[in-house]
Amino acid sequence: MSNQFKKEYIVVAQNASGRNMNVPLYRFIGEKPGPKVYIQSSIHGAEVQGNVVIYHLIQRLKQMPICGEVILVPNCNPVGTNIKAGEYTLGRFDPVNGTNWNRGYFYDESLIQAFAQSVQDDESIPQIKQRFRQQIKDILAEKLEESWGIGLAQRLNLKLQQLAFDADFVLDLHNGPVSTRHIYVPEYAQSSASLFNIPHVILIPNKFAGALDEATFCPWWTLQTLLSDKRHKPIEFGVEAFTLEMGSQEVISFTDGEYDANSILSYLNAKGCLVKSDVYPQTMRRVATYLKNYKVLYTQQGGMVEYLAKPGELIKQGQPLAKLLNVDELDTPNATEMILAQCDLIPILHFPSASILSGTQLYKCFTHYFEL
Amino acid sequence: MSNQFKKEYIVVAQNASGRNMNVPLYRFIGEKPGPKVYIQSSIHGAEVQGNVVIYHLIQRLKQMPICGEVILVPNCNPVGTNIKAGEYTLGRFDPVNGTNWNRGYFYDESLIQAFAQSVQDDESIPQIKQRFRQQIKDILAEKLEESWGIGLAQRLNLKLQQLAFDADFVLDLHNGPVSTRHIYVPEYAQSSASLFNIPHVILIPNKFAGALDEATFCPWWTLQTLLSDKRHKPIEFGVEAFTLEMGSQEVISFTDGEYDANSILSYLNAKGCLVKSDVYPQTMRRVATYLKNYKVLYTQQGGMVEYLAKPGELIKQGQPLAKLLNVDELDTPNATEMILAQCDLIPILHFPSASILSGTQLYKCFTHYFEL
Amino acid sequence: MSNQFKKEYIVVAQNASGRNMNVPLYRFIGEKPGPKVYIQSSIHGAEVQGNVVIYHLIQRLKQMPICGEVILVPNCNPVGTNIKAGEYTLGRFDPVNGTNWNRGYFYDESLIQAFAQSVQDDESIPQIKQRFRQQIKDILAEKLEESWGIGLAQRLNLKLQQLAFDADFVLDLHNGPVSTRHIYVPEYAQSSASLFNIPHVILIPNKFAGALDEATFCPWWTLQTLLSDKRHKPIEFGVEAFTLEMGSQEVISFTDGEYDANSILSYLNAKGCLVKSDVYPQTMRRVATYLKNYKVLYTQQGGMVEYLAKPGELIKQGQPLAKLLNVDELDTPNATEMILAQCDLIPILHFPSASILSGTQLYKCFTHYFEL
Amino acid sequence: MSNQFKKEYIVVAQNASGRNMNVPLYRFIGEKPGPKVYIQSSIHGAEVQGNVVIYHLIQRLKQMPICGEVILVPNCNPVGTNIKAGEYTLGRFDPVNGTNWNRGYFYDESLIQAFAQSVQDDESIPQIKQRFRQQIKDILAEKLEESWGIGLAQRLNLKLQQLAFDADFVLDLHNGPVSTRHIYVPEYAQSSASLFNIPHVILIPNKFAGALDEATFCPWWTLQTLLSDKRHKPIEFGVEAFTLEMGSQEVISFTDGEYDANSILSYLNAKGCLVKSDVYPQTMRRVATYLKNYKVLYTQQGGMVEYLAKPGELIKQGQPLAKLLNVDELDTPNATEMILAQCDLIPILHFPSASILSGTQLYKCFTHYFEL
Repeated sequence: MSNQFKKEYIVVAQNASGRNMNVPLYRFIGEKPGPKVYIQSSIHGAEVQGNVVIYHLIQRLKQMPICGEVILVPNCNPVGTNIKAGEYTLGRFDPVNGTNWNRGYFYDESLIQAFAQSVQDDESIPQIKQRFRQQIKDILAEKLEESWGIGLAQRLNLKLQQLAFDADFVLDLHNGPVSTRHIYVPEYAQSSASLFNIPHVILIPNKFAGALDEATFCPWWTLQTLLSDKRHKPIEFGVEAFTLEMGSQEVISFTDGEYDANSILSYLNAKGCLVKSDVYPQTMRRVATYLKNYKVLYTQQGGMVEYLAKPGELIKQGQPLAKLLNVDELDTPNATEMILAQCDLIPILHFPSASILSGTQLYKCFTHYFEL
Repeated sequence: MSNQFKKEYIVVAQNASGRNMNVPLYRFIGEKPGPKVYIQSSIHGAEVQGNVVIYHLIQRLKQMPICGEVILVPNCNPVGTNIKAGEYTLGRFDPVNGTNWNRGYFYDESLIQAFAQSVQDDESIPQIKQRFRQQIKDILAEKLEESWGIGLAQRLNLKLQQLAFDADFVLDLHNGPVSTRHIYVPEYAQSSASLFNIPHVILIPNKFAGALDEATFCPWWTLQTLLSDKRHKPIEFGVEAFTLEMGSQEVISFTDGEYDANSILSYLNAKGCLVKSDVYPQTMRRVATYLKNYKVLYTQQGGMVEYLAKPGELIKQGQPLAKLLNVDELDTPNATEMILAQCDLIPILHFPSASILSGTQLYKCFTHYFEL
Repeated sequence: MSNQFKKEYIVVAQNASGRNMNVPLYRFIGEKPGPKVYIQSSIHGAEVQGNVVIYHLIQRLKQMPICGEVILVPNCNPVGTNIKAGEYTLGRFDPVNGTNWNRGYFYDESLIQAFAQSVQDDESIPQIKQRFRQQIKDILAEKLEESWGIGLAQRLNLKLQQLAFDADFVLDLHNGPVSTRHIYVPEYAQSSASLFNIPHVILIPNKFAGALDEATFCPWWTLQTLLSDKRHKPIEFGVEAFTLEMGSQEVISFTDGEYDANSILSYLNAKGCLVKSDVYPQTMRRVATYLKNYKVLYTQQGGMVEYLAKPGELIKQGQPLAKLLNVDELDTPNATEMILAQCDLIPILHFPSASILSGTQLYKCFTHYFEL
Repeated sequence: MSNQFKKEYIVVAQNASGRNMNVPLYRFIGEKPGPKVYIQSSIHGAEVQGNVVIYHLIQRLKQMPICGEVILVPNCNPVGTNIKAGEYTLGRFDPVNGTNWNRGYFYDESLIQAFAQSVQDDESIPQIKQRFRQQIKDILAEKLEESWGIGLAQRLNLKLQQLAFDADFVLDLHNGPVSTRHIYVPEYAQSSASLFNIPHVILIPNKFAGALDEATFCPWWTLQTLLSDKRHKPIEFGVEAFTLEMGSQEVISFTDGEYDANSILSYLNAKGCLVKSDVYPQTMRRVATYLKNYKVLYTQQGGMVEYLAKPGELIKQGQPLAKLLNVDELDTPNATEMILAQCDLIPILHFPSASILSGTQLYKCFTHYFEL
């Protein structure tokens, strides 16, 4: 017994040479029915490790029978991947207008409220899911046909969202600047956090801020909350979406990619996507924090900085995070300055360059974290 | 009788060399009391014509007695002005993270509602103004002191907002890409649109979208609406704020600058900021549209484009806006393609480069416009 | 009677998505034998008007019988065309390392000297041409196969040079920043300057500085000089190469493109590439200067600049070229500064942005020019 | 007994805000006479570790008596340091025109030949040195006063060269992309290579290619060669210049900086710049190669790459250097490709991004290396 495999290309843009820019789509269809899974990587062009993870997933899925369907779209942003600025990849935003490539997905709260109104008391969960999916997909199609057109990032995002909104489980593979593994998990799906082999978990509220995971789970979470209220009993659609940050941008590692592919398979297995698989999550320490306690430390000064605290380390209040050099003051006591932790924290990522202006995101840190 | 003049420098950032980056502030204080005026230019680094306008304003104000105070901050964004990418200035957004330099101003609707609650029925307009101003300024100061720091663009914005929120009349001088003169006017201040010599007027609702003009007028408009309701009579604070788009970015013209300085002086004169001045607005055709009818035309295709419709021209439905070349099809009928107007419109600005990807903002157009 | 037409694609690079990047090649082959012509455009990505010229040439050549062969490669640099930095195209150099896209062509003087030695006294001109061409083409092929690889710009250049070195007449279509029409003409081919409808001519010596025109004509000029000496009589290979600057970058115009297509056809006609064509050069004033007298004016200061002298205008010594604004000095006499012409000159192009640092190429100017 | 200390600022440019951009200069003058030393860092803006080295040198020189004079100019390129493109520093070249910041120094071979002619047989070495220095410095001053102006990078370079050409020992502190420590040493000064604690040495010929070290040693080496020939005995001026590559760009380390400061002091001590110092070079393995054997490996393909060979490792022929992923082929055997060493080599540095186009400098490698 084995999966059916298809490879397609989706056109997402056209470049200045007048050429279509497309992205590969790898699709596995199991013999047995089951959930739909959608996994994409590199919506931010410099965050390339997810492509390696998808490479390993494809090798594994060739030999591992699945239930339902798994769609994998590596390197999903062909514009972002190919914009170099100096030796690095300027992949986080459209170089023309600064638009973050991960902020153009569709979400409209009022529409969900209207849909909730439209649900009959006797409508079954599968019926509701099917009808809601169709409605959102109709709107996405309509937006893509808007006669005045839509922006480049938005078109890319909506094209991908068409695939993602069809799925039950959505994984968006990212990287931080210089970063340790972490994952964004919607609060209602906290129990799923332990199905991945990822030590740092950010629990996020049901608030749309533009990313694909939110564009996926916010509608379902909102709808199930409204319907649970209406029917006076808990309704669950079983849809989950996560942003996985697989380590640092601008580097790839095949070994790490295998680890993360395994982590994803253990999640998929727990969710019933695999047929008789023995891939289970590792026993490991997992710490979590709420989004409001995931703090950005901005610099007050400009200068050159040595990052003393490494991502993933436990840092106590008062311990050094970074040491700053001011080249104008090399002969005075102001030549160097220590930046200290204001409270106990775990640095999750730091800025990838030693040269900083004031107001730079130096570190992002877990504060008030707890074990899962 | 003449004005008092002061020149200061405000530190807004620190660069990677560890140096303070400051901006000049020119302040004129009249012998007579009167309103406060705040004018800044070049928050977007490539939009430099406002600096020329301020140059002309300074020459004029040296000889023209004012009532109250006029503060002028040209070139208010020293980071944006100095980031070159190729021969042009990458001045619309922070090159590190894509943050638009004009979107980090502070606004909090709930705070205004709370303040409205706090207003006693017998509190006078000047008292309310003074107290509201102080409260916002206290919050700005507090945010600037945030112990985890704030982002570069936000710090710059809040520093400038401290000056702007103190003023009664705020003018933010911008340029479009390739553009004709136009102005953003809050709907409640529509009558002031005709005090400037600007032929194209966009009427914007009381909705904060991040810019300085909104950060200035939204709080006052919201507050006066709430208090008018509460007191059952119209309350007016007389505060107005506008974004003036003075033509195209990346070019300056001293002649045009003089025209726009005159336009601004005629507004200030009408608002009682000048002592016995004879500068009045020109008699001219002014057309306006509501923000929702100020439409962006995005390209469906990539290629090279000739901009046939010039900013400011009246274009009829079906007339050509642009002609696109596809270098892959030079031997076929698809070599060129006409992009036509979908309805009667006035193109206000167009993209400044012939090379475009799909999803590019080709034109921004007035539709459903009307004469003022 | 009509030409044969073929369309091909040449692979010149591979992008980070692992995709081949190719460029279209349009080839016309006449029924009669005759010279080979090679025309390319947009080696600098923002210089796109040449693509329009090639569009018009293709329309014309479909109906105009030729002798020999004409190869047209529009948009020959797919990397440069598609690198946006802000709204503009960062097309002059490789964004990774700053390498000018027009400086990686092959040239080796010693090799030409050795070849000249190898020429027998009785070898005919066609034989010499054929043998020399083959030798250079062999070296180009060898360099492209170098086992340690070669740089991106160099590979692109050598691929194009393989086509160009096969031709008798080579035209490289460029644009200046903000520019009037001008052409680079090798001194030995001065008489050909009047075959184009281009008013400004730069006469360049036989010195390789990296560009395609030089990489094409320097070997032939050097060889014919050496052989003329050896044989004590003038030898001519009849190979010519020119860089045509068709106006300003970042804009296209179909009307201007038609004018320049006509100008090129009048040159080709004079060179015997067309069958019974009646396209002749216009009678017009053409002025020339030697390369050493084509002067760059660099700024001593930074600031914002209004370009007062327009490209193509005659400017007398002492007349203003540009007016500079210093935003730090708006209240003092140093607010503005005039930059004056040091001698009689014709500005040919100027920098395309109002914002300049010290050491910016403000203008390039004809000095000591004369009528052709 | 202690050194005299002075701090100055040199203006090297003016920015678009019309402000002077200056760089700090730290000068130590010993009580005893002795050689002049000039050390600069960060001519390439992203190569910041040299600033830390200079910081440590200053701390040491405050307490360590010297003979002669030591001038230190950290962060010598205030434009390059402050041009961000995304999170990284676009510091290798002028973002306007692609000019490498380290290629605008002055060198003119014919001038040295003329000078050699002018030397009388009885002119003493100190006299010759003084007169040659003055002549070069006069030319530098003249070039800086050129009435048509000079380019930004060139002005910066000539200003620094004025300081460097006055010195006997010149150290230019750089970093590679991802790199191990290495040093460029002129062949005639090979014996000095072992005075630094740097394991990898590139021996470079007397050929000017634009960098500061060459601009410093080529004139002296050429002159002493010419005069040695003329006088039929070896002449030595004792001037040396080196480019030190201190590890990777975009990071700083205070610990590593201390190591390299010590390495530099051991060289200065050996050259008689320190009074009774006990800083000596470490006993360590040092390998060298000639510049022609310092090979660049360019990629044939585009894709994502894992760098398997670490800088400084010994790699045998046939061993893997890098593993490439092609996202379009994840389901085929072409998904990955190994890039193997063509010969025994030591990778010294590699490209800093996983995303590469074809023609990328993947590795720079020592081949045919030998122990010093």
